[in-house]
Amino acid sequence: MISQEAKKKFLGIVGEKNYLDSKQSLVAYSYDATPNYQALPDAVLKPRNTQEVSEIVKVCNEYKIPIVPRGNATNLCAGTCPLEGGIVLIFNHINQILEIDEENLTVTVQPGLITLDMINAVEAKGLFYPPDPSSMKISTIGGNINECSGGLRGLKYGVTRDYVIALETVLPNGNIIRTGGKLAKDVAGYDFTRLMVGSEGTLGVITEATFKLIPMPEAKKTMLALYDSLESAGRTVSKIIANKIIPTTLEFLDQPTIRVVEDFAKIGLPTDVGAVLLIEQDGPIEVVEKDINRIAEICEEEKALSVQVAQTVEEGTALTTARRSALSALARLKPTTILEDATVPRSKIAEMVREIEEIAKRNNVQICTFGHAGDGNLHPTCMTDARDKEEMHRVEIAFEEIFEKAIELGGTITGEHGVGVMKSPYLAWKLGEEGVEAMKTLKLAFDPNNIMNPGKMFAKESRKRVVVTR
Amino acid sequence: MISQEAKKKFLGIVGEKNYLDSKQSLVAYSYDATPNYQALPDAVLKPRNTQEVSEIVKVCNEYKIPIVPRGNATNLCAGTCPLEGGIVLIFNHINQILEIDEENLTVTVQPGLITLDMINAVEAKGLFYPPDPSSMKISTIGGNINECSGGLRGLKYGVTRDYVIALETVLPNGNIIRTGGKLAKDVAGYDFTRLMVGSEGTLGVITEATFKLIPMPEAKKTMLALYDSLESAGRTVSKIIANKIIPTTLEFLDQPTIRVVEDFAKIGLPTDVGAVLLIEQDGPIEVVEKDINRIAEICEEEKALSVQVAQTVEEGTALTTARRSALSALARLKPTTILEDATVPRSKIAEMVREIEEIAKRNNVQICTFGHAGDGNLHPTCMTDARDKEEMHRVEIAFEEIFEKAIELGGTITGEHGVGVMKSPYLAWKLGEEGVEAMKTLKLAFDPNNIMNPGKMFAKESRKRVVVTR
Repeated sequence: MISQEAKKKFLGIVGEKNYLDSKQSLVAYSYDATPNYQALPDAVLKPRNTQEVSEIVKVCNEYKIPIVPRGNATNLCAGTCPLEGGIVLIFNHINQILEIDEENLTVTVQPGLITLDMINAVEAKGLFYPPDPSSMKISTIGGNINECSGGLRGLKYGVTRDYVIALETVLPNGNIIRTGGKLAKDVAGYDFTRLMVGSEGTLGVITEATFKLIPMPEAKKTMLALYDSLESAGRTVSKIIANKIIPTTLEFLDQPTIRVVEDFAKIGLPTDVGAVLLIEQDGPIEVVEKDINRIAEICEEEKALSVQVAQTVEEGTALTTARRSALSALARLKPTTILEDATVPRSKIAEMVREIEEIAKRNNVQICTFGHAGDGNLHPTCMTDARDKEEMHRVEIAFEEIFEKAIELGGTITGEHGVGVMKSPYLAWKLGEEGVEAMKTLKLAFDPNNIMNPGKMFAKESRKRVVVTR
Repeated sequence: MISQEAKKKFLGIVGEKNYLDSKQSLVAYSYDATPNYQALPDAVLKPRNTQEVSEIVKVCNEYKIPIVPRGNATNLCAGTCPLEGGIVLIFNHINQILEIDEENLTVTVQPGLITLDMINAVEAKGLFYPPDPSSMKISTIGGNINECSGGLRGLKYGVTRDYVIALETVLPNGNIIRTGGKLAKDVAGYDFTRLMVGSEGTLGVITEATFKLIPMPEAKKTMLALYDSLESAGRTVSKIIANKIIPTTLEFLDQPTIRVVEDFAKIGLPTDVGAVLLIEQDGPIEVVEKDINRIAEICEEEKALSVQVAQTVEEGTALTTARRSALSALARLKPTTILEDATVPRSKIAEMVREIEEIAKRNNVQICTFGHAGDGNLHPTCMTDARDKEEMHRVEIAFEEIFEKAIELGGTITGEHGVGVMKSPYLAWKLGEEGVEAMKTLKLAFDPNNIMNPGKMFAKESRKRVVVTR
């Protein structure tokens, strides 16, 4: 609940036009892309600049009102669902490209900017921003920073955190700090810039960001390899890396996913194959050709059933359809699609996928797995129905077993989707109680009233480790 | 002072052999590579494992004893000088390579390992750890992490923070946490891994680290270009980048440095030139040749007096001598050498160097400037005599003016040397009072008794901004 007094202060800051509290507005901002989570905020605010954000935060502190900073809510961890009410902060007015600096290879933007708009703008100048989350057509760059978004190029180029070099942040006390700069080297003080990346709106509101860019790669080639077995595909991945080749993209679909994708997209994939690898390399043309040829050889050596190298850009795009349409294809099978992102060291991919298959069978749930084989970031995806409580319970058990196995293999519960509400009960499995305690220490120090995105990352109750009986 | 009771506890943890408090030992650990700072610790402890580190930290907390974690103390910010006494923690027993993982391209090490030993070990397997701080023959990898060390390859490959992917840390309360993993993608919780990098021992003791590695570049070429003027060299740097070429190394010497280097190393540099650029490119051989040829053209276009491309590895090494011997050459001129590392956006290099020359002249001090032109990380180096109080005062004023100018140009007070004691009075110039306050909030939350490397990063008294009268 927002008191009349607090509301009056908010109106004084952003004006009537930028303070929404109609039922319709509240419903529109009550959920994100995560199935099964919904809660109404008390109001939606559209600040017009950093100063207004700072003033809003101060009012929230005074009246203990939760703040959920929200981009376009494409996240899959219920990270922007306003579970405890309060205000949702949106950035429709703070969404500009402020500068593309071609001398220092940087771009400076505001958080409400759509990721793809930024990518297109820098590419028009021959510059390259590698992180390419699947949601990039809709997601905002502020959301990407808060979630430390990944994408298909993580193996070679890293993720959002590897490109953020400066931030302007409004801290929970309303202070505005500027950290980093257009600098490859800067060790003046604690690394607040990287600390904010992936902090999911729990430590402050990001109001401006500078990214480093790199020159646009000269060329790109795409290939698709089909395999009889998961293990052959897994060995191919290991052997490519062992040959000291780091492809841009090294994506993987398992058999259940292949079937669904073919049924959906009709691209001529044989549905009886055990696994598909989609591989891309970019860089100087000589290097791309050399690498793609060597990769094709490796695929053959590892008994690929077929290896297809795209000869044109259009052919390349056609090959990537299989991977790019995986989620859409899966999503139409059942009312509810739960997309997870357990991640393991690259060498453990085949073992993990095999284990996921067994876990699905054991719990009698339907799980298809695809994802980023090159960086070990898998997306086991469960097609289910949220209304079926009994099945949902089995789905939950299955994912718990998947998280447990990922951690056993040296992996993590989330590679790129974030903790949010979804994975907060499992965070201690990865970090230990001491790790979660350290996070709480930090959170409490900066946000003693717990106004910043409360209920996220920190679970009300942690899940005990599952005792998996095999 | 360490009470008998506390000493007894320390002895119980590490044993007599690993507890040093003879006068000789204390003097040996009373200083680091920074001129003009010295203070005796009360004892020097050599823990044998993480558990012992944790127990030591707990005792220090109980008795409020300062802890200074120390590698080989090559830092230039007085970061490991035990200013407030207490114990110096050294890692002679915790200095092993634990694993080189060729499948996941990672190396896991203990903090006491010499940087170059790690580099040699991974290179023997065809793998590459790019950060190459000048001190790497002596420095420890734990020191590199605590200072977020840079080096000559920052432009293309980044710095220490860009390679640390997992850490084991003993927090100031004695808790042991493990963060990150052999994972390109991991968003499970706050990024403590990167927060620890560059925290200068003020937030905990790092006891294990995993670095990501990349495949060893196939080839490398080196070239040297001489210029009449600083501005031509600066324009060359900008034009190389504008041509979308990112060299591995793009180093710079100004005229005063060239003179001193030639006098010292007798490598045949003409002492009347205005600036020297040392440029290296690595990668696949075709790319290296193409890039080096284009760079040579750019140097000519920008009126280089001479451009020399090394034809062999030996010739390449000879060319790098000029840059590598700069500090040694300068150091023999006067009793005290103060090496600073003000950093600016790459596009501002020429302007900054010109300004440094004027500041030196105005304050009647001798400053030579060399450094990493490609990433804007300059090393203005002052040859002086610490015993001459009046001159030292002018030196201090000159460096203050340099810091102020760097910040005015969008730069920072320290690119790779750290804050330590040296630059703590100026930290607020870069971060603002609100930024320093945020750092204090974090420090206090984790280390309420201020036992971890006290007196570093946080100044007892901040310097007011200089009013530069021009």
